[in-house]
Amino acid sequence: MSLRPEIITSAQNPRIKELIKLLDRRTRKQTGLTRIDGARELLRALDGAVLPRVLYLCEELVRSEEGREALRRCREAEVPLQALSAQLSEHIAFGDRREGLCALVAWQPLALRELTLPELPLVLVVQGIEKPGNLGALLRTADAAGVDAVLLCDGVTDATNPNTIRASMGTLFTLPVAESSSAEAERFLREHGLQVYTARPESSRPYWQGGFAEPSAIVVGSEHSGLQDSWSGAGLTALSIPMRGKADSLNVNVSAAILLFEAVRQRG
Amino acid sequence: MSLRPEIITSAQNPRIKELIKLLDRRTRKQTGLTRIDGARELLRALDGAVLPRVLYLCEELVRSEEGREALRRCREAEVPLQALSAQLSEHIAFGDRREGLCALVAWQPLALRELTLPELPLVLVVQGIEKPGNLGALLRTADAAGVDAVLLCDGVTDATNPNTIRASMGTLFTLPVAESSSAEAERFLREHGLQVYTARPESSRPYWQGGFAEPSAIVVGSEHSGLQDSWSGAGLTALSIPMRGKADSLNVNVSAAILLFEAVRQRG
Repeated sequence: MSLRPEIITSAQNPRIKELIKLLDRRTRKQTGLTRIDGARELLRALDGAVLPRVLYLCEELVRSEEGREALRRCREAEVPLQALSAQLSEHIAFGDRREGLCALVAWQPLALRELTLPELPLVLVVQGIEKPGNLGALLRTADAAGVDAVLLCDGVTDATNPNTIRASMGTLFTLPVAESSSAEAERFLREHGLQVYTARPESSRPYWQGGFAEPSAIVVGSEHSGLQDSWSGAGLTALSIPMRGKADSLNVNVSAAILLFEAVRQRG
Repeated sequence: MSLRPEIITSAQNPRIKELIKLLDRRTRKQTGLTRIDGARELLRALDGAVLPRVLYLCEELVRSEEGREALRRCREAEVPLQALSAQLSEHIAFGDRREGLCALVAWQPLALRELTLPELPLVLVVQGIEKPGNLGALLRTADAAGVDAVLLCDGVTDATNPNTIRASMGTLFTLPVAESSSAEAERFLREHGLQVYTARPESSRPYWQGGFAEPSAIVVGSEHSGLQDSWSGAGLTALSIPMRGKADSLNVNVSAAILLFEAVRQRG
């Protein structure tokens, strides 16, 4: 091993080809690997004890304070670094940010059986979300509200989509996130003694009548079709957000935020 | 005048050139005109008594129920119709929807002196918002919460941006929207006896301590820099949304939604 690590400059390098292929969902699924683009997202991954296998790096492009902190923490944690030329680093970057940092991590959502809940849990259940950016926004909101777990049910998009990671501000990696079918999730919530509140525009019970000081789960459905019928059995409580306007419409992230922060308020 | 109106097929037609130029902010400012693309947005404009000067139309592309309703209501209101070829209609369409409807309207935000408030007003003040899509999302949320007016202060983006109109779901046209400087807005709110609550992450007072059952205004700042200092004088009450997570971050639309729906809750 040379003292000065070799700088990769070619997009034909097999490791670079792997990074680029990880923008594709199937490759992420097959390998269990995903990539983290950007300093803020990488910091949250380190907060969540998600250590990169490799950090691909172009130090001259690491200009922000967050970027320098992320790099410092990777060095401290002895993450293997691999230098890239500026041109190649910009070539492989996701989206419009050029931060000189792209980490390769092994990360997958948990299975339900791997999930442990604290004493007074608040759980967000997300069913059938279609757009990666919306899923990421929901994760960011769930983090802000301090939820103890996010259950992704019947996912149409996947959690490791780069747009999800970005819109989540990296909170995908600090939140306990599990994946299951709706039926499994409902059973899990019952077994753990949670009150289950579903967001249903047609319910006559306003959301502030939910008793969120108890162990609670809040269930929101997809952008287009709302919650599927399976989430309407006995033991579930449907809540609505009263609509006072002309368009009668809130996006799913805003709806989830209103319910989650009502729980924050009730818990004081 | 012929019984069968002439179909415009050429993008060189001066009226079509005008429509295309209205995608540019300066042209909208100079002419006081703007365009409404899409059925849902047009329906909300009709709800808000914003009557198109002309509806540019390709009837074979009007396939949705909302589109047919919008067309029926324009005919009822005797809006002048101008037929376009399918190709031209698709050529001039904004964004990725092809709904066969593009309306030309004269619409500008109100001046403060034109604004009247009801007895127990709830007002949203939006300062320095940068992205048209964020402004539109805020308007959609404000509509859902039933606010009585939205004040746009120190606007960086303009309300008639097609992305604003789309993200607002057309509620731009049903809400009383006024534009002013921050200083004028603050004076207006005082003169009308409103309690003014500012969203400030650094405040130690949680948002649910706001007394929204009184005449109230909620002030939110820009995505990047938050509220400017001028919104911190005597008589203003700063409220924060307690952050329980790792990323300490909510987008401005979600923050506004949490505060506005706390007002809805308190008002019952």
